[in-house]
Amino acid sequence: MAMVCLSDFEAYAKKYLPKIAWDYFAAGADDCNTRDENILAYKRIHFRPRMLRDVSMMDIRTKILGTEISFPVGIAPTGFHQLAWPDGEKSTARAAKAMNTCYIASTYSTCTLEEISAAAPGGLRWFQLYIHRNRATSQQLVQRAEALGFQALVLTTDVPYTGKRRDDIRNGFCLPPHMKLKNLERDFEVCKMSLLDPSVTWNDIYWLQSLTHLPIIIKGILTKEDAELAVRHGVQGIIVSNHGGRQLDEGPATIDALVEVVEAVRGRVEVYLDGGIRKGSDVLKALALGAKCVFIGRPTLWGLAYKGEEGLRDVLRILQDEFRLSMALAGCARVSEIGRHLVQFSKL
Amino acid sequence: MAMVCLSDFEAYAKKYLPKIAWDYFAAGADDCNTRDENILAYKRIHFRPRMLRDVSMMDIRTKILGTEISFPVGIAPTGFHQLAWPDGEKSTARAAKAMNTCYIASTYSTCTLEEISAAAPGGLRWFQLYIHRNRATSQQLVQRAEALGFQALVLTTDVPYTGKRRDDIRNGFCLPPHMKLKNLERDFEVCKMSLLDPSVTWNDIYWLQSLTHLPIIIKGILTKEDAELAVRHGVQGIIVSNHGGRQLDEGPATIDALVEVVEAVRGRVEVYLDGGIRKGSDVLKALALGAKCVFIGRPTLWGLAYKGEEGLRDVLRILQDEFRLSMALAGCARVSEIGRHLVQFSKL
Amino acid sequence: MAMVCLSDFEAYAKKYLPKIAWDYFAAGADDCNTRDENILAYKRIHFRPRMLRDVSMMDIRTKILGTEISFPVGIAPTGFHQLAWPDGEKSTARAAKAMNTCYIASTYSTCTLEEISAAAPGGLRWFQLYIHRNRATSQQLVQRAEALGFQALVLTTDVPYTGKRRDDIRNGFCLPPHMKLKNLERDFEVCKMSLLDPSVTWNDIYWLQSLTHLPIIIKGILTKEDAELAVRHGVQGIIVSNHGGRQLDEGPATIDALVEVVEAVRGRVEVYLDGGIRKGSDVLKALALGAKCVFIGRPTLWGLAYKGEEGLRDVLRILQDEFRLSMALAGCARVSEIGRHLVQFSKL
Amino acid sequence: MAMVCLSDFEAYAKKYLPKIAWDYFAAGADDCNTRDENILAYKRIHFRPRMLRDVSMMDIRTKILGTEISFPVGIAPTGFHQLAWPDGEKSTARAAKAMNTCYIASTYSTCTLEEISAAAPGGLRWFQLYIHRNRATSQQLVQRAEALGFQALVLTTDVPYTGKRRDDIRNGFCLPPHMKLKNLERDFEVCKMSLLDPSVTWNDIYWLQSLTHLPIIIKGILTKEDAELAVRHGVQGIIVSNHGGRQLDEGPATIDALVEVVEAVRGRVEVYLDGGIRKGSDVLKALALGAKCVFIGRPTLWGLAYKGEEGLRDVLRILQDEFRLSMALAGCARVSEIGRHLVQFSKL
Repeated sequence: MAMVCLSDFEAYAKKYLPKIAWDYFAAGADDCNTRDENILAYKRIHFRPRMLRDVSMMDIRTKILGTEISFPVGIAPTGFHQLAWPDGEKSTARAAKAMNTCYIASTYSTCTLEEISAAAPGGLRWFQLYIHRNRATSQQLVQRAEALGFQALVLTTDVPYTGKRRDDIRNGFCLPPHMKLKNLERDFEVCKMSLLDPSVTWNDIYWLQSLTHLPIIIKGILTKEDAELAVRHGVQGIIVSNHGGRQLDEGPATIDALVEVVEAVRGRVEVYLDGGIRKGSDVLKALALGAKCVFIGRPTLWGLAYKGEEGLRDVLRILQDEFRLSMALAGCARVSEIGRHLVQFSKL
Repeated sequence: MAMVCLSDFEAYAKKYLPKIAWDYFAAGADDCNTRDENILAYKRIHFRPRMLRDVSMMDIRTKILGTEISFPVGIAPTGFHQLAWPDGEKSTARAAKAMNTCYIASTYSTCTLEEISAAAPGGLRWFQLYIHRNRATSQQLVQRAEALGFQALVLTTDVPYTGKRRDDIRNGFCLPPHMKLKNLERDFEVCKMSLLDPSVTWNDIYWLQSLTHLPIIIKGILTKEDAELAVRHGVQGIIVSNHGGRQLDEGPATIDALVEVVEAVRGRVEVYLDGGIRKGSDVLKALALGAKCVFIGRPTLWGLAYKGEEGLRDVLRILQDEFRLSMALAGCARVSEIGRHLVQFSKL
Repeated sequence: MAMVCLSDFEAYAKKYLPKIAWDYFAAGADDCNTRDENILAYKRIHFRPRMLRDVSMMDIRTKILGTEISFPVGIAPTGFHQLAWPDGEKSTARAAKAMNTCYIASTYSTCTLEEISAAAPGGLRWFQLYIHRNRATSQQLVQRAEALGFQALVLTTDVPYTGKRRDDIRNGFCLPPHMKLKNLERDFEVCKMSLLDPSVTWNDIYWLQSLTHLPIIIKGILTKEDAELAVRHGVQGIIVSNHGGRQLDEGPATIDALVEVVEAVRGRVEVYLDGGIRKGSDVLKALALGAKCVFIGRPTLWGLAYKGEEGLRDVLRILQDEFRLSMALAGCARVSEIGRHLVQFSKL
Repeated sequence: MAMVCLSDFEAYAKKYLPKIAWDYFAAGADDCNTRDENILAYKRIHFRPRMLRDVSMMDIRTKILGTEISFPVGIAPTGFHQLAWPDGEKSTARAAKAMNTCYIASTYSTCTLEEISAAAPGGLRWFQLYIHRNRATSQQLVQRAEALGFQALVLTTDVPYTGKRRDDIRNGFCLPPHMKLKNLERDFEVCKMSLLDPSVTWNDIYWLQSLTHLPIIIKGILTKEDAELAVRHGVQGIIVSNHGGRQLDEGPATIDALVEVVEAVRGRVEVYLDGGIRKGSDVLKALALGAKCVFIGRPTLWGLAYKGEEGLRDVLRILQDEFRLSMALAGCARVSEIGRHLVQFSKL
């Protein structure tokens, strides 16, 4: 089976992963409308490609928070990589480093932050966290991440409670006994039920800032109002995200919400996006609409399911090649040439 | 079979109810476009969810006509509950009371109002009525309902004649011989043909007001013009409804008509809605667009078909949980925080 | 098999007619987009139904060119009724008279005008004609029709050449040897090829007027420009028609074109419509948008295919009942109460 | 099997061509959205047909760059005609000449330009070229074409790199050993990899002009900005094209881009289009929106696959008949009567 595009990896993962794991990764909230809209919304955005530009020397590198990455696609935080591949997040860390991009490690990793760091020393990594009812837990995680060289904190804001994912309920989803949420030293059921604090507000950003020198990126923003609040509370970046459609169903597709957020932010902080990226031209559209970089969630897991580190490198390399080709065919030789003029929204 | 969401109950009812009963409950007028649009219209409304609000203490209670209910979902009037479950409307009354919400009992009940009252003493109940050719019939029903403690009258206005439901015609639908329209002491065929008065006009509201001290709620309003007339004629509430798409096909979806009605009413009376509610986030959208409460029709019958009172409680509890979760994920801790800002209409 | 709605007749005809006949009646030009759009366009028009109007005394009669008909649905001109039923147009004439409506007899009838007249003496009939290369042929037809008591002439304008109907070409469609275009005393192949004059222009209206005292109705108008020209050339009526989607594919649906034509005509002549009428509420929509009456083409043939005169009466009676019911449920007791306010175009 | 419309030829080719050849001709980039949109976009354009025009004398001839052709449809440049029919481009040249239209021969022909010229002496032909890394190659091709009587050069601008066509990758597409890119005396793999120069810019137009007296037509323009640049750089014509959806996926359909380009060009040069033409009415729409002529790509190959020269003549004759009929039914007797007023964009 030739692995030509990301949907080849998806088909592989669906075929070879245990059903309960596939269902967990694939799950969306309720009717899965937002999960699917994340993808469909890209089809309503058309390119306005320009011809006869010199695209012989392509440069697809970019910088996020000042650090160069090989192309504007990083690894979004997703949990339980051991469900996809035995080495779990260690493979993810190695692939991200090999491809010279950023890996946002999840609180819900099945490897410790220390294992992740040791697997790929010097790799660019950010740490995704929640604010726990027990603030000491959060504080310790932040300090461990900072000590290990993680270069930013990504605060997830859209999980005051877990979204309703019907298949997980039907399957009675839980982690196999030999996997643990190693960073929390707890099992998943406990975490799901009680660890996260639904009383968190914008003021807790100040508390988080008081714990660390790391830049704070806020993940889960979908409106201009919240984008403005994020900037005012001093965050360094925003990830436009709807948690892959796993939390509130029937919110906006992220590529649609991006427009509103970018407009509100007016360049004051970097804006990123996750959700629905399936080919290189999706990345190009997101950048044209103002994203500095995008992150891939489910495709990461498909790559791992295919061949661990090597599979994820394949996924990233395909996206890289597609992104470079899309840029060239649209008439851009450098990331800085990508702009709003490159796309238009379909009237349909 | 796990009952996770309302469509699980629908699938159960379709599988286990006699075809003629399923068809009757499922029927829409003509091509069933309005029945289906009631549901599809929700997909065109997107949330604008807000993050980092304190949603640790969720309060989903509301009041309708001054009476508190546990959450803004009641039981819409539907006929012939014995077709779904042997105990019929007695089970419905018990479930509604157990869940502390409002049950609008239908004139076309297969239990008497007295049986319904006795089944769940003290429950919040409204009585749905038509105006009959023989006004004495209507008058007696109103007076019985008032005497039994029903707290409002719901006048259905969209049945001057019965809509054309093709499957019912093909099936030759009629009630089984052992079921009766007990409140009318007639059989269904007689009622369908001749009881209702198609000459009713707005002036009959005054006549109805003269019979009772109960508040009058008008059901079946779909336009701003009629909403204005309703307010001017002194009703206490409006239910935006198209009779589940069973009367005039190709009128508006109720969630679309709601916007127009709410705007016309300008807060002078409470506005409710039925039609197409299938998950908790539908309730949230209706409230965001100005409904004070919504009512469920077919899901009531699916719950009864599953396990009578217990099944209907399951349906209500699922909706309650989903509604609470949707509110929290959209950033609202109290019903009073829900507002128009929370939703936007998709351009598609 | 219960015949409940018009699509039941369609299914019957598709099942029992010879394939070549079914294909001929069903045919649309090219990809059949316009044929199908004629129907789909109605789904994008929603009612704004009004409640609590006195609809106890329903009056669905109307007048066309001053003559009363039982309801605003007549028989559109279609050819070759003997392909559907042995008695052909004689059955059609009898059914139309029995139902007290107007029958527009086609030039391409398989019965003579004399036979049609004799079959249903006193029925309201109009005669549809083309302008032939041999003007004497047209002149004689006009004079025969006038002498036989036909009350108007309907000039078809959209067939300078026959549209490309792929299935007819594949089937090698022609009339069976025992059928003739009796009014022309020719066989169909000859007619199709050479009789009609593609050089006809607006000036030929004057010539036609010089031949007859009958009112002239022009059929096939789809634009405001042509509607204005029709009025200026002194016609008495316009039928908005695209020939059932059998001529130019991808022109407008007739219900969409109606709006433009009605607006241009400003009440100076009566405007009718054919194409896509499949249920009573379609009739109501057309009238709400300004049509004085609509005409049914394919449903006529389905009725004939079912049971000849009786089958067509069934079709008309179903439409009549559905139209009356739609009117009542929309809050109109008389045709004169139907107006533009009753409908809105869906944004979708 | 009757060949009635172009999709009959498509079905034939899909059935009888080797899969690898069919896949190559059918291929679109990535998800094939643009390939499919090229066709779907025509469905959103409706005619506004006019009646009672004298269409007895139809004249469908037009001129491109001053040379008369029998109707406004030419042969777009496509490669590897021997994959479809043994005689390859020689058959194409003969069919185009027989039908008195223009054939744009591709650089990637499997016959030499000399063979093509000899096959149909005196036929109207243009030569499609790329700018090669080795400019001498381009120069020699231009001079050969000019010497052989080709009447214009068509510079393809949308292939700085080859688009990603998934099926070709899966199939490992390459030319069979007995076929060669005869004009380049190289095999296809070499060409695909390294011949074309991705550093080409607008200045190279001046270089090309310095080599030849032939008019230069630029192919691949999709935006008003590039249209303006093309005019300013002195080209004689523009072909609005997205390479049949084979290069950048999710750019605009060509019929949509045509509007923008025509508006920008303001008649200063001729504008043509390729992509998605499947029936005569598509041609009429493109002309109504300002194209002087359209070109067919895949239908050319289907015609060749069916019966070589004869098959392609069949395809062209069908398009010719359909175009003439569409014009007549829309009320136009001459190409000069076709205009913007004839079409409207559907709101859907």
